[in-house]
Amino acid sequence: MLVGIDIGATKTVALAVGKDGSVRGRSKKRTKAREPEAILERAEKAAREAVKEAGASFKKVRRVGIGVPAGVLDGVARLAPQLGWQDVPVRELAEGIFGRQVVVENDVNLGLVGEFHEANLGPLSTACAFFFGTGMGGAVIVDGRILRGGRGLAGELGHIIVEPGGRACGCGNAGCLEAYASKTALLARIKSALFDEGRESALRDEISPDDRVVRSSVLKKAWDAGDDLAREVVEEGMRYFGLGVASMMNGLDPDLVVLGGGVVEAFGDEMVESVKDQAAPHLFADRERISVVRRTALGDDAVALGAAYVARTG
Amino acid sequence: MLVGIDIGATKTVALAVGKDGSVRGRSKKRTKAREPEAILERAEKAAREAVKEAGASFKKVRRVGIGVPAGVLDGVARLAPQLGWQDVPVRELAEGIFGRQVVVENDVNLGLVGEFHEANLGPLSTACAFFFGTGMGGAVIVDGRILRGGRGLAGELGHIIVEPGGRACGCGNAGCLEAYASKTALLARIKSALFDEGRESALRDEISPDDRVVRSSVLKKAWDAGDDLAREVVEEGMRYFGLGVASMMNGLDPDLVVLGGGVVEAFGDEMVESVKDQAAPHLFADRERISVVRRTALGDDAVALGAAYVARTG
Repeated sequence: MLVGIDIGATKTVALAVGKDGSVRGRSKKRTKAREPEAILERAEKAAREAVKEAGASFKKVRRVGIGVPAGVLDGVARLAPQLGWQDVPVRELAEGIFGRQVVVENDVNLGLVGEFHEANLGPLSTACAFFFGTGMGGAVIVDGRILRGGRGLAGELGHIIVEPGGRACGCGNAGCLEAYASKTALLARIKSALFDEGRESALRDEISPDDRVVRSSVLKKAWDAGDDLAREVVEEGMRYFGLGVASMMNGLDPDLVVLGGGVVEAFGDEMVESVKDQAAPHLFADRERISVVRRTALGDDAVALGAAYVARTG
Repeated sequence: MLVGIDIGATKTVALAVGKDGSVRGRSKKRTKAREPEAILERAEKAAREAVKEAGASFKKVRRVGIGVPAGVLDGVARLAPQLGWQDVPVRELAEGIFGRQVVVENDVNLGLVGEFHEANLGPLSTACAFFFGTGMGGAVIVDGRILRGGRGLAGELGHIIVEPGGRACGCGNAGCLEAYASKTALLARIKSALFDEGRESALRDEISPDDRVVRSSVLKKAWDAGDDLAREVVEEGMRYFGLGVASMMNGLDPDLVVLGGGVVEAFGDEMVESVKDQAAPHLFADRERISVVRRTALGDDAVALGAAYVARTG
């Protein structure tokens, strides 16, 4: 029995996973506190519950994999703005709390690991992922292994430059994909249209000037209602999303490109097809390669399943 | 004694290389004919001359590495427009002509292999290269190995999209880096300015409406003379070059980014510094990473040295 845990900004999911990769038990808790110890203690409870649901003994679990929304170097979470963490020694803390060996990894990396194994790709395959949520997360696998890069900064696919001299990005630069395709970017554009330009939109009832987040479902509802502003900002996001996907495909020629995250989950295949339509004309030499682009197959479970996988392989 | 050969559109260079990587002998010939057999026969002569100059016996050479300006799959050169080749079984032909085992590889990949080993990077390092010449060639090394990708199309860094809806590229797409930073792109812009818009420029004496190529030295001379048009088109090329470099650095976090090719060699450090200045503000999290970007250390020898290297390692 393997245990994989996904610690997100709002919820913590623990899965008990069989050696064949099947989910045998699960437990979900809100991520309430912000202190690392409190979050990890709740994660440990969730893990016990998931293993219990699977009808197994927690004593038999040798190693636990944990995904966190942060860059991770040697088990230390560097910066997790969503949790308010900076340089938190998650592995050390978790090994104390769980009483067993723990592998800690960036959540987007784990999401791609989960999808990579679900897709049954060969060990020499290359893959990348774009997770369209609050930000635009990214990850790269080469020859079956997570690409970390020289300073642990590889896979920042939200910071491919898609518009020279373009919009300011939260990272401090300009023209990044994340400045066009992220909930943060969409919200900023919508607020500016509503409250600076006085645009009419069904979104006016849903969004206030001081909102700092927007739910994907709010965007989807306005999109489905044919709201002009929603259409405009989401379509722009998808256009740039496609350019970013195409650039990485021309650079890496991956066997799999996973599109995921809250916004992709909310908009579903319509968004995936639109991004593919934008990307395909930009693929070098062989546009049929667009077929490697697909929506997450594991949905919400991808990160925790990837965590269980790395718990097994170390 | 190892032999590495660089078959280019205009010249063929053969190097006899010691096991320590030092050049012991060299021979250079014009690439005159276009028939694969004739080109390979001249390459074999050049190889013999280089080995002779090194004071060694050609009989002792077990394997030969050859770089060609084409994508290579299983020893077959897929498409080499500069040589007029399509689907040429170079390895098979060369093994017949050389009478020994031959390794055939794309020239840009070999150039990066040469530079990678010259830089003494560790086996788990990542690197990429941009070669600014007639086109914009690219290559990627991950964990010390050339990244080929699912269809052998990885490393097409000239086809990162740097301008949405931008200029038409020779590849049939639009907005690619190569449509802004390649001699082909610069020449198209210069011809349009001179002959469509009637712009004044020192380049008028150097370039005719039906020219299909421009020498890097012609561009450099006009640049040095402060010619407005030359400054404008080269500066634009460098700006987009910087964006492409930054995008790949955010995706891969490489330990080395090599800038090379005829235009970089002609413009020298001034161009490398300018590209770095353009790229640095776009690097995610750590702009100091720009220090990994550098000009080719091996210059014209990089491809043949990389060929000798792969001849040894297979």
